[in-house]
Amino acid sequence: MWPGLEALPWRWAGGAALGLGLALEALALLVRGWWRRRRAPRREVLFFPSPVTCTAALLGEPGPAPCLCPLPHGDSPLARLLRRLLSARRSLELCLFAFSSPQLGRAVQLLHRRGVRLPVLADCSPHFAGIQVRHDQESGYMHHKFAIVDKKMLITGSLNWTTQAIQNNRENVLIVEDAEYVEPFLAEFERIWEEYNPANYTFFPTEKEQK
Amino acid sequence: MWPGLEALPWRWAGGAALGLGLALEALALLVRGWWRRRRAPRREVLFFPSPVTCTAALLGEPGPAPCLCPLPHGDSPLARLLRRLLSARRSLELCLFAFSSPQLGRAVQLLHRRGVRLPVLADCSPHFAGIQVRHDQESGYMHHKFAIVDKKMLITGSLNWTTQAIQNNRENVLIVEDAEYVEPFLAEFERIWEEYNPANYTFFPTEKEQK
Repeated sequence: MWPGLEALPWRWAGGAALGLGLALEALALLVRGWWRRRRAPRREVLFFPSPVTCTAALLGEPGPAPCLCPLPHGDSPLARLLRRLLSARRSLELCLFAFSSPQLGRAVQLLHRRGVRLPVLADCSPHFAGIQVRHDQESGYMHHKFAIVDKKMLITGSLNWTTQAIQNNRENVLIVEDAEYVEPFLAEFERIWEEYNPANYTFFPTEKEQK
Repeated sequence: MWPGLEALPWRWAGGAALGLGLALEALALLVRGWWRRRRAPRREVLFFPSPVTCTAALLGEPGPAPCLCPLPHGDSPLARLLRRLLSARRSLELCLFAFSSPQLGRAVQLLHRRGVRLPVLADCSPHFAGIQVRHDQESGYMHHKFAIVDKKMLITGSLNWTTQAIQNNRENVLIVEDAEYVEPFLAEFERIWEEYNPANYTFFPTEKEQK
């Protein structure tokens, strides 16, 4: 120790204690704030109808860059939805009542070419070369409209993946990363995926169904 | 000060400073944990189809209690949806593509009798005595299916408010209290409410629309 320090009165040390306590607390607050910002789950809402904008650059389509087509080239709800879907690196679960939008179809084919795993559940069956699609034999509708990006981002709402819905309807889409939503939707996907296993199809009515 | 305290060595005071700092930090963590638990936003998912259960008690219907009807009296996604809606004390905004479920209709009428403010936006117009309903003249669908309880709880998903959807379809409903979702949906409601103001109706095509 330095000479003379022993002689400092105890009440100075009390002040130092309080000061150190407050400094520790401020540091903890800073670290926690940084940690929370770094890990803040994405929470976003998109409303439709979406103005028609050019999505050629997003979808990596061949042609001049910047694209010379007459459509506006700004942001739009559809462009934001496409960007979220195209952020998939490993997997994209799709569980869709209707799927006929050309732009969303091109996004799915682009992800497929990049090697992203793409299991698709659909009420009416869309066709994609090389992508496994399971659909149902139920009387009720498979009315979900959700996608799960890399098992951590849920995209769900009222929007069917059709041009009519995107361009003409009032619709909503939520982008969600909170585990309280993502995990039950993943479990729902797995449940339906197993139920729609073609091995379980019945092509002729069973005795029970004939009654 | 107490006699003798002045004589304590300074390094003891250093230990006391660290101890006090750590104690302050632990207290702050406890208070913050309690505060976060107290204010944790509700995050819940309901999946349909819902088994048919008795909702008479929930809907305050006259009759013996417990109800003697042959339906199961346990919990169900529909019962949980009804409970969330019936928790409204001041207001319930409804923005619905389709609304024909008798149970959900009775819940809305019960809230109306309790004096809850009930503005309704609908694509096809349901009729409730004394409740103001606005609908559209647009060519696209008003395809939302959401409700907002007391301006702080959003209920939204794929579920149309029909018996077909509740009992037969694969559907989802999210219960959400995060402001990042509730506020944009409230703003969307206000925007559509103004646009659907009957004062803006055009009963004959305008010159622009004839082109």
